[in-house]
Amino acid sequence: MSRGIHLALHPYGVGGPGQHGLWKDPRVAKNASIDIGYYIRQAQAAEHALFDALFIVDSQFINATYPAHYLNRLEPLTLLSAVATHTRHIGLVGTASSTYNSPFNLARRFASLDLISGGRAGWNVVTSFDTGTSRNFGLDEHLDYATRYGRALEFVQVARGLWDSYEDDAFPADVERGVFLDPRRLHALDHVGEHFRVAGPLNVSRSPQGQPVIFQAGVSAEGRDLAARVAEGVYAPGGTLEQAREYYADVKRRAAAHGRDPEHLKVFLHGGPVVAATDARARRREREIFEEDNDFDRNLALLGRSFGAYDFGVHDLDAPFPDVAHLAEKGGRTGAAQIIRRAREQELTLRQVVESVAAFRESPFVGSPTTVADTIEEWFAAGTLDGINLAFRTDDDLELFVDGVVPLLRERGLFRTAYEADTLRGHLGLPVPANRHTRVRERAGG
Amino acid sequence: MSRGIHLALHPYGVGGPGQHGLWKDPRVAKNASIDIGYYIRQAQAAEHALFDALFIVDSQFINATYPAHYLNRLEPLTLLSAVATHTRHIGLVGTASSTYNSPFNLARRFASLDLISGGRAGWNVVTSFDTGTSRNFGLDEHLDYATRYGRALEFVQVARGLWDSYEDDAFPADVERGVFLDPRRLHALDHVGEHFRVAGPLNVSRSPQGQPVIFQAGVSAEGRDLAARVAEGVYAPGGTLEQAREYYADVKRRAAAHGRDPEHLKVFLHGGPVVAATDARARRREREIFEEDNDFDRNLALLGRSFGAYDFGVHDLDAPFPDVAHLAEKGGRTGAAQIIRRAREQELTLRQVVESVAAFRESPFVGSPTTVADTIEEWFAAGTLDGINLAFRTDDDLELFVDGVVPLLRERGLFRTAYEADTLRGHLGLPVPANRHTRVRERAGG
Repeated sequence: MSRGIHLALHPYGVGGPGQHGLWKDPRVAKNASIDIGYYIRQAQAAEHALFDALFIVDSQFINATYPAHYLNRLEPLTLLSAVATHTRHIGLVGTASSTYNSPFNLARRFASLDLISGGRAGWNVVTSFDTGTSRNFGLDEHLDYATRYGRALEFVQVARGLWDSYEDDAFPADVERGVFLDPRRLHALDHVGEHFRVAGPLNVSRSPQGQPVIFQAGVSAEGRDLAARVAEGVYAPGGTLEQAREYYADVKRRAAAHGRDPEHLKVFLHGGPVVAATDARARRREREIFEEDNDFDRNLALLGRSFGAYDFGVHDLDAPFPDVAHLAEKGGRTGAAQIIRRAREQELTLRQVVESVAAFRESPFVGSPTTVADTIEEWFAAGTLDGINLAFRTDDDLELFVDGVVPLLRERGLFRTAYEADTLRGHLGLPVPANRHTRVRERAGG
Repeated sequence: MSRGIHLALHPYGVGGPGQHGLWKDPRVAKNASIDIGYYIRQAQAAEHALFDALFIVDSQFINATYPAHYLNRLEPLTLLSAVATHTRHIGLVGTASSTYNSPFNLARRFASLDLISGGRAGWNVVTSFDTGTSRNFGLDEHLDYATRYGRALEFVQVARGLWDSYEDDAFPADVERGVFLDPRRLHALDHVGEHFRVAGPLNVSRSPQGQPVIFQAGVSAEGRDLAARVAEGVYAPGGTLEQAREYYADVKRRAAAHGRDPEHLKVFLHGGPVVAATDARARRREREIFEEDNDFDRNLALLGRSFGAYDFGVHDLDAPFPDVAHLAEKGGRTGAAQIIRRAREQELTLRQVVESVAAFRESPFVGSPTTVADTIEEWFAAGTLDGINLAFRTDDDLELFVDGVVPLLRERGLFRTAYEADTLRGHLGLPVPANRHTRVRERAGG
């Protein structure tokens, strides 16, 4: 089933960038984003459905106009560690910034989660999108784009080096010989690079999956290249089927160009499926959800987020879109640059830009269970995805998908009927990376 | 019972600075220090005995001669988060370095643990003892002693500021008025200090105990002063009853001098009780344990640890103790300075220094259950401790204490018969700190 579709669950908590009004739903606990019980139940539901992973997003910056999703929430590794001991199979993927962490500490925390979960940890590497984050870490400004990506690459390389500190046979714990540790199986890293100097060794040994799985969301050329070089799962930007196919082929090609097996880079599309008894009802519900979330002030704040938490509220809404080109240039904000280009070409006011950015768009995975299963199958066959990162507004929506769509995917041989492994690597069909020191020794010996 | 004795459990895992040979004991799992099940069972046993807290030590540096205790172990917050959802009352105190973390990230992780545990988190603030740690974080050398302590003080102040980001009524989540967040109840910190600039706000709200409890181990004048200024629990260096009484009086006096209620700084002694049916058998067992752990190479490495992971192995064991005064001066190593002084006064060789540092010393809490209970009562009455941080070699030893000594302490009114609270602050008789912003508003209003 490693050739089937991989499914991950992305629990929302309360509200989010696209779920502004969700907290008003009586089925959603107002404190869900800080309630560990909520996350444990979500993980157990996903595990019951045999999903590959639970995926936790993050940001280290908020302000009062921010999406409720990020406002008040548990730190991902603390969260996932608590979830780990209440689940047995499902992968646990947490988001953490390579810009605002140190490799030794973060490598250690993911290694700990990997041991606590028996080999189910995954790290979604982000370079931190929100500019304001820098001010929580003593910097007036984000590191520039190229530096952030260079740092991310080296960070992952250092983490992987630290994760190999202990070979699997490092602790003979041989009472007769009086040997607890075999010091020849413990290795310092002595990394000296452009961004980091880290001696090691790490004081955590390897898990049953060897090392945590690396995820990344690469959109720009730098992002795609980072994913192609080090990621084992990548969150694709989505769009139309044609755009998704282009992206899929591009990152697989880039992975191969780096000498990797493209099969070892799994592409996940984001999907917020809306399932109902009929297609018409599902489409109606999709529109209702859009209206529930649609709020001009929220949309204005979200537009500002693309420009580095810029406050567009200081401008006249009905004057031409303001000159904010300097914000788009800073930090290589490709989305912001596109918005400026369109505003100029179409001579839009600020209000018109806000409305066009937040305009209703139909999403692909909406319809009756059969329609949604058909669409997933079509997109999978078209070479757009290896997996889908699924987000649902309520437990009812999750249930409609799990009870309606998943059985159809199973019937068609597209999704597992039982867990074939206990590790995240196992679910994704990724090999356990050999310890670099063991490999060198074995080569030398053979 | 907040005037009774507080008991914390410090689980060893496998081996430790004073438990070198423990891994050979067939009752101890060889992988205990990376087995989350071990820690969950320890926490549950301690909770069953109504202990105040579980205490997890840490270090971010190892080498092959290091105590097994630190060699391979779970990161404390990841560990405690997993333990949190398998316990309901016991406090969860984790060690983390103020030298090798950033305040925003660490404050957030402790705030998350505090929410996940329902108000049971404690942070043992360390400035990182082991010199080699710096090389895992891009620095050749530790920050100097005064800088480390200045940074620790400011770090705690920043963390406490961040923990007050949300007032308790920040989320009205009022569907009728359409108000999820009340932005007037969310506060940036805008801290600009000598060591840190942190804007905030933190994206985690307060727990039922308001803020995590701050612990510290203050030995030197700087350490005692830091404890007196910001700690709510302090790990005392121990020694004789007279030394412990002097320390207790000193830190309480220092706390009062800083305008604090000395009752709000709880002094914990470290105790590794040895309990047996008779005093003679307990003393014999104490001696046996010493012999099991006594190993010249280990003792040589431990001596080196006091001098900054210095390798004394390069010196002639039978020559006069080498001139390492420069190592003792660096970073204000008071223990190392004492060793040098004694070696000089008594004209000791390196071998003799190693043997004298590691010499057998009787510890106070050894004997039959009655003797140990008597000693604890005596030390408590003498004003040496508010609590004891208990370490046991095996589950059998824990059981001997819990079944033999604890009931006697209860009979004498010295230890609780039921939990009177669900938070760590509640167990320790510490007040919930009012949110600074709420306090200011209420003062202004009144």
